[in-house]
Amino acid sequence: MTYRPKDTKERIVHRLKIAQGHLKKVITMIEGDAYCIDILHQSDAVQKALKEIDNIILENHLKSCVSDSIREGKSDEAIAEVMNVFKKKQ
Amino acid sequence: MTYRPKDTKERIVHRLKIAQGHLKKVITMIEGDAYCIDILHQSDAVQKALKEIDNIILENHLKSCVSDSIREGKSDEAIAEVMNVFKKKQ
Amino acid sequence: MTYRPKDTKERIVHRLKIAQGHLKKVITMIEGDAYCIDILHQSDAVQKALKEIDNIILENHLKSCVSDSIREGKSDEAIAEVMNVFKKKQ
Amino acid sequence: MTYRPKDTKERIVHRLKIAQGHLKKVITMIEGDAYCIDILHQSDAVQKALKEIDNIILENHLKSCVSDSIREGKSDEAIAEVMNVFKKKQ
Repeated sequence: MTYRPKDTKERIVHRLKIAQGHLKKVITMIEGDAYCIDILHQSDAVQKALKEIDNIILENHLKSCVSDSIREGKSDEAIAEVMNVFKKKQ
Repeated sequence: MTYRPKDTKERIVHRLKIAQGHLKKVITMIEGDAYCIDILHQSDAVQKALKEIDNIILENHLKSCVSDSIREGKSDEAIAEVMNVFKKKQ
Repeated sequence: MTYRPKDTKERIVHRLKIAQGHLKKVITMIEGDAYCIDILHQSDAVQKALKEIDNIILENHLKSCVSDSIREGKSDEAIAEVMNVFKKKQ
Repeated sequence: MTYRPKDTKERIVHRLKIAQGHLKKVITMIEGDAYCIDILHQSDAVQKALKEIDNIILENHLKSCVSDSIREGKSDEAIAEVMNVFKKKQ
């Protein structure tokens, strides 16, 4: 069960579609023999876009699910999950 | 002008299409109200896939364009470009 | 005001002193003209050690200060601070 | 064998000593029960300083050892070493 407000959800999907467009361009660049460095910067744009989306999702998660778990005295699992995400990012 | 061998190019496009599939799944998960943490791990899978593709592109770039530039005594710009990519990754 | 348990505090200081030792070795390696790649791996060891320490500190922070703020209905600032740390790590 | 110019070497040691000072402050902050978030930002300052030092070392390495290896037709190992450093950073 999740608690994403409708406008947050729409904002995330909108951004994900932009990331999809950037990723499609990476493929076009590879197929069109574009310069390696330009492709690496384009790939980086996709990754940056995804990180910003991750931030929106994580912030929403902390404000809803994690906060609820803490208020209900069941914080341990919720915090462990957040720490796992954090460790992967490092 | 680039020097990507045909099989490297095909391997990169193949991997990019897998990343595209993972990214499409992120959108489906958002639209289907999947659990935030699961979405963050799926988004991470896309980013990991792109990093591995970056590595193939960068290694190929070092072995071709950068090596050529160095042999031709024009290493400064080539090295500056690689350093820019490296700094963005940190 | 912080809520670090005494044993957590001792564990963090112990690890920080190990990181200090690794960092001192980086300086010795530079001064002794060690091979660049070996120095970069030694510098990476310091950074990995610091990231693990960050994880202990952040987990403790989520379990104490952030949890308290959420229970007291003052979650917004606490979550904003955690998000700032998270964004810097990306 | 390395090829670090004397001024580069001095610049790196100078920066490493600044990083050492930042790290010492992290220990003081832990021992003095400073606020977790402030400690995390201080730890981040050490990591940022080390990354900038890594960049100086890597750039120097590309301009000297790697360039020499490429000119001598022995690029494979040199490029593999650089790729290993790059992959660790991601």
